[in-house]
Amino acid sequence: MGPHPAVAAIRLAVRRALHDVLADARSDARPEGAPLVLVACSGGADSMALASALAFEAPRAGVRAGGVTVDHGLQPGSDARAREVAERLAALGLDPVEEATVAVGRAGGPEAAARTARYAALDAAAERHRARAVLLGHTRDDQAETVLLGLARGSGTRSLSGMAAVSGGLSGAKDAAHRYRRPFLAIDRQTTRKACLVQALPVWDDPHNADPSFTRSRVRHEALPVLEKALGRGVVEALARTAQLSRDDADALDAWARDAQLAATRPDGTLEIAALHDLPPAVRRRVLRRAAIAAGAPAGSLFARHIEETDRLITAWRGQRPLNLPGRVEAKRQGGRLVLQQANQ
Amino acid sequence: MGPHPAVAAIRLAVRRALHDVLADARSDARPEGAPLVLVACSGGADSMALASALAFEAPRAGVRAGGVTVDHGLQPGSDARAREVAERLAALGLDPVEEATVAVGRAGGPEAAARTARYAALDAAAERHRARAVLLGHTRDDQAETVLLGLARGSGTRSLSGMAAVSGGLSGAKDAAHRYRRPFLAIDRQTTRKACLVQALPVWDDPHNADPSFTRSRVRHEALPVLEKALGRGVVEALARTAQLSRDDADALDAWARDAQLAATRPDGTLEIAALHDLPPAVRRRVLRRAAIAAGAPAGSLFARHIEETDRLITAWRGQRPLNLPGRVEAKRQGGRLVLQQANQ
Repeated sequence: MGPHPAVAAIRLAVRRALHDVLADARSDARPEGAPLVLVACSGGADSMALASALAFEAPRAGVRAGGVTVDHGLQPGSDARAREVAERLAALGLDPVEEATVAVGRAGGPEAAARTARYAALDAAAERHRARAVLLGHTRDDQAETVLLGLARGSGTRSLSGMAAVSGGLSGAKDAAHRYRRPFLAIDRQTTRKACLVQALPVWDDPHNADPSFTRSRVRHEALPVLEKALGRGVVEALARTAQLSRDDADALDAWARDAQLAATRPDGTLEIAALHDLPPAVRRRVLRRAAIAAGAPAGSLFARHIEETDRLITAWRGQRPLNLPGRVEAKRQGGRLVLQQANQ
Repeated sequence: MGPHPAVAAIRLAVRRALHDVLADARSDARPEGAPLVLVACSGGADSMALASALAFEAPRAGVRAGGVTVDHGLQPGSDARAREVAERLAALGLDPVEEATVAVGRAGGPEAAARTARYAALDAAAERHRARAVLLGHTRDDQAETVLLGLARGSGTRSLSGMAAVSGGLSGAKDAAHRYRRPFLAIDRQTTRKACLVQALPVWDDPHNADPSFTRSRVRHEALPVLEKALGRGVVEALARTAQLSRDDADALDAWARDAQLAATRPDGTLEIAALHDLPPAVRRRVLRRAAIAAGAPAGSLFARHIEETDRLITAWRGQRPLNLPGRVEAKRQGGRLVLQQANQ
């Protein structure tokens, strides 16, 4: 008799997410020994299920498996909690196992600050141990929540694309390019809970997840249930599918904009109006955004209205004065060219 | 003293939506006399406000303004209601005013069937009176609801693009290409109510709008308020912005796919694998969808999984057998070409 379907599902997901690492481990050509994969684990059902699947698959594939649990220091007793999670990871056979204690700042709000601190700690652990990959336990439900949060920003296709199945470390180092893997993006939270239950794994419910002062918690416990009631049971799946389709669309449009920007840029760095004018608006606006950022405008302060005003220098020219964009970048039309440059001061 | 801000806002919106018609009316070159614009009016606040703004603007611009109200025959007394709405339109000075009685079928569910019948009646009225445009009262709130309904389908960027500010008649006739105008897509429902109130216009609340057996009504009365509570007050605006951005993105990607399809199609109608292989997945899948529809697959029965399986003939070729797509269309790889054709039978 095979494993319970929930357990089979999480193991298959881990094998698929690590197919490149598993293939490398099978080849004998690696002088540095068996590759190491780390799992990031909070002790919740999602990441405990992930840790158990990695602990099962890794030794069978000649891969070493370790774990990291991050103590954010935000709740009394979080250090004892982290120690307990680390012990559970070690009990699964993971080695090395680390507790990383981080100091959460305030930049961008409590959720963003905690995330920044967490990924910095995971990057550091991955680099210290030369890990080939770090697995993250985000599920399809998390993905759906992320799409709704992106929808609330109203900033378009990229913001609807949720979390990537594979993404790079913050350091930008070349060997970090495919560091983070999210094997469970197509698996629902219920399946991870079931997998823990049938494997008798104790799990811990982070009280933050139910705290309505966090936007994500309100999305999970208030918005999604009501959306399901209004729109039908398939909403979580539809949101996750939207993420994938939006990511592919945003990637294609970014590639087009990159090519169009190259083609429109003259040797002196100005942009040829004629090369921009007939682009579809969605592509032209992306080119303008890229060019403004290249000229020194901070991406985070560049809003749609800035890009739209710049666009009117191309499509609705009636002798407008130069525009001031964030980061002291000036946008002006000069003959047949668009000039975006930072004021010297 | 100028008009109340709400009244000023709806009038400005109507002028903007009709700028081409107003420009034509100003020129003396039209032998066929003053152009006619119709407003579709249910008697609700949105379309009554729209009718009042058209009635105000049209005579000042040398445009004739008429109105149509559709009796769907779905509620007892709907004929008397339609007559009353028609009287109110006439009282605003609109001429001609029509009550169109339609028979609502069942295809696609009650909301879709009512919509189909309504647009057929509006098309017929526009053609009978040679109207230059038909105004529709959809507001930013309706747009937000439409985006959420599209999100629930999970079928990507096009399904998130809501309603167009300008769209063509169902007949596809050339002079119907810009028939429908939605001047209020950037105006909230509250503003239309206010405009009716300050102009002392009686409005009628369609009980269907509050009937929870309708998906749109559940979205309006249950989903959106909870989303606003979870995500903040700007949700309706963010959804409407998403519609515009998604529409532009979908248009750009469709244009790319059209060009790529042309470039990949050989004189015998087959597709060059080499020309498709390196396209971004978002573009390649659109090309395949277009090609399948061109080969005879009905758009409505062509699902993402059909396209993904067809895509694997290109990107994951391992000698698969021919695929059966809806509409008896067969997809197969033949050497360096992809063949999509309908079985003869």
